[in-house]
Amino acid sequence: MSKSTESAEQRLIGRYFRPLATHPGAFGLADDAAAITPPPGCDLVLTADGVIAGVHFLPGDPPESIGRKALRMNLSDLAAKGAKPVGFLLSLALPARVSESWIAEFAGGLAKDIERYDCPLLGGDTDHTPGPIAASIAAFGAVPHGGMVRRSTAKAGDVVIVTGTVGDAALGVKLRRDSGLAKRWRLNKAMAAQLTQRYLLPEPRNALAKAVRLHASAAMDVSDGLAGDLGKLCHASKVAAEIDVERVPLSVAAHAVLAGAPKLIETLLTGGDDYEIVLTLAPGELPGLREAAKSTGVALTEIGRIVKGDGARFMRGGKALAFKQAAYSHF
Amino acid sequence: MSKSTESAEQRLIGRYFRPLATHPGAFGLADDAAAITPPPGCDLVLTADGVIAGVHFLPGDPPESIGRKALRMNLSDLAAKGAKPVGFLLSLALPARVSESWIAEFAGGLAKDIERYDCPLLGGDTDHTPGPIAASIAAFGAVPHGGMVRRSTAKAGDVVIVTGTVGDAALGVKLRRDSGLAKRWRLNKAMAAQLTQRYLLPEPRNALAKAVRLHASAAMDVSDGLAGDLGKLCHASKVAAEIDVERVPLSVAAHAVLAGAPKLIETLLTGGDDYEIVLTLAPGELPGLREAAKSTGVALTEIGRIVKGDGARFMRGGKALAFKQAAYSHF
Repeated sequence: MSKSTESAEQRLIGRYFRPLATHPGAFGLADDAAAITPPPGCDLVLTADGVIAGVHFLPGDPPESIGRKALRMNLSDLAAKGAKPVGFLLSLALPARVSESWIAEFAGGLAKDIERYDCPLLGGDTDHTPGPIAASIAAFGAVPHGGMVRRSTAKAGDVVIVTGTVGDAALGVKLRRDSGLAKRWRLNKAMAAQLTQRYLLPEPRNALAKAVRLHASAAMDVSDGLAGDLGKLCHASKVAAEIDVERVPLSVAAHAVLAGAPKLIETLLTGGDDYEIVLTLAPGELPGLREAAKSTGVALTEIGRIVKGDGARFMRGGKALAFKQAAYSHF
Repeated sequence: MSKSTESAEQRLIGRYFRPLATHPGAFGLADDAAAITPPPGCDLVLTADGVIAGVHFLPGDPPESIGRKALRMNLSDLAAKGAKPVGFLLSLALPARVSESWIAEFAGGLAKDIERYDCPLLGGDTDHTPGPIAASIAAFGAVPHGGMVRRSTAKAGDVVIVTGTVGDAALGVKLRRDSGLAKRWRLNKAMAAQLTQRYLLPEPRNALAKAVRLHASAAMDVSDGLAGDLGKLCHASKVAAEIDVERVPLSVAAHAVLAGAPKLIETLLTGGDDYEIVLTLAPGELPGLREAAKSTGVALTEIGRIVKGDGARFMRGGKALAFKQAAYSHF
């Protein structure tokens, strides 16, 4: 514990975080709490997720991407639930050795995403820690009353859709840890950089939130691997999914890796950090979803069907793949 | 990082935290997010605060008190802002060595306070950490639209009131660290235990929230020491406070300590973890406040006045006390 005048914390907050608190209810971070007036007729959707050095990011990761990644993990949950971002609280634990330039870059990254996703800082707290850097975020979104898209409402006969591409971040983190892999995987620089970037800075699908809300029967964000997360959705909905592995959307880089190392299909399907959305919907809703998604530029791929039963089966050549570990866990 | 089936985290959550998620919008912690319908005509008040082992609590502190303390720190903010608790999100970072019985006791403590303060768990996340145990909480309360009590609205002529007693926790943490102090301070066991308990488990003044909202001109919770916190309130309100040190309410135990060690007045006035409320109000509001507070059993003490100027002055014998460090900081 340390005793000090308020200057150290207050000065840092004033300099780097107050400019991020653009919401009037944040009171310039100069009060004990924030106040928001929820949009009339709306529910608030609440989620919390955070990052810890050595667990969710690596010591050498650029500070600019760390806060952004923490925020985007939460934005991804809001997107999958069909919610429009309202704002967030940030709890930051910093070792004494963290430099002011680190904090400046961290906050600078957040500033970009606050503007990009229209999700201002509402408040939070800052502490010194004897442990690793940690950033916890609680984020809030709005949906029309009763409109949050659930995990537990998929129905037999529904189509299964996943956004973007799957597995890139799981390859990206391997590349970050072992730079020799790029050569063994015969990746050119651009491909290796693209995979690494997907790990450093996810692209949450908030542009699709309204389309998901209007058309999906159920949805969740893919953060712990497609296989495990779809398994959770099936379990919550008391249904099964039959997924055609050949249809799971992969990036050109991931295809290149698989060509030389076909066993990595398990890493792609069970690795974490995709921050895509997996959603189910009645077949009749597909045209509406595709139309609504057109302007967003986000790819939607039909990968299978919901059927009666329990669990997600990933089928290839008429057989279900067996995974050693179905889901990625930071725990 | 670790790969695992979802069982470890899911089993812990199911066993110890799902029973705490009594709010229907928590969906039994089985979705990505919670949804709440704000009470009509109300604003939501949002605050975040957390505890880290070795910073906000000591390694030997009972697990039962750790989660409760983290929640009560947030409840204290809601109380000072005049808000009624709605619920909270919990982000828990646990080292691998933490035992299941630790988690059971931690959650058991939270369960008691969830019921006591009617503030259910809405969601959150759990991660392993290579660092110390850390619990971050984001808590939500409701006030009638525009009704959040601010720091920045005290006026010259207002009376300054503080709840309960000040400085006990600052003595309590000293006793926790140096058990020989009880003898030097000539405290009997009951007194020492009372001071320690104030540090382990604050008593936030949520019973007074409505009275504060109806009568206070400004308020904040006293978490970083009365001197520093009142200084922040004065700064935000662009006023000064003149406080009569002899009128600052102290417990019998704190009086006993001061009798032998008068210099500790600085510790009492600048130490942290009081979780009382300091509030200002027009003199005409005093009878209403006292009437509203009567049924709560919380003591209200008039300790001074708001005047023109800047900063909080603690007067004794016609002179302002000079503090080495005005405010306690965990940063």
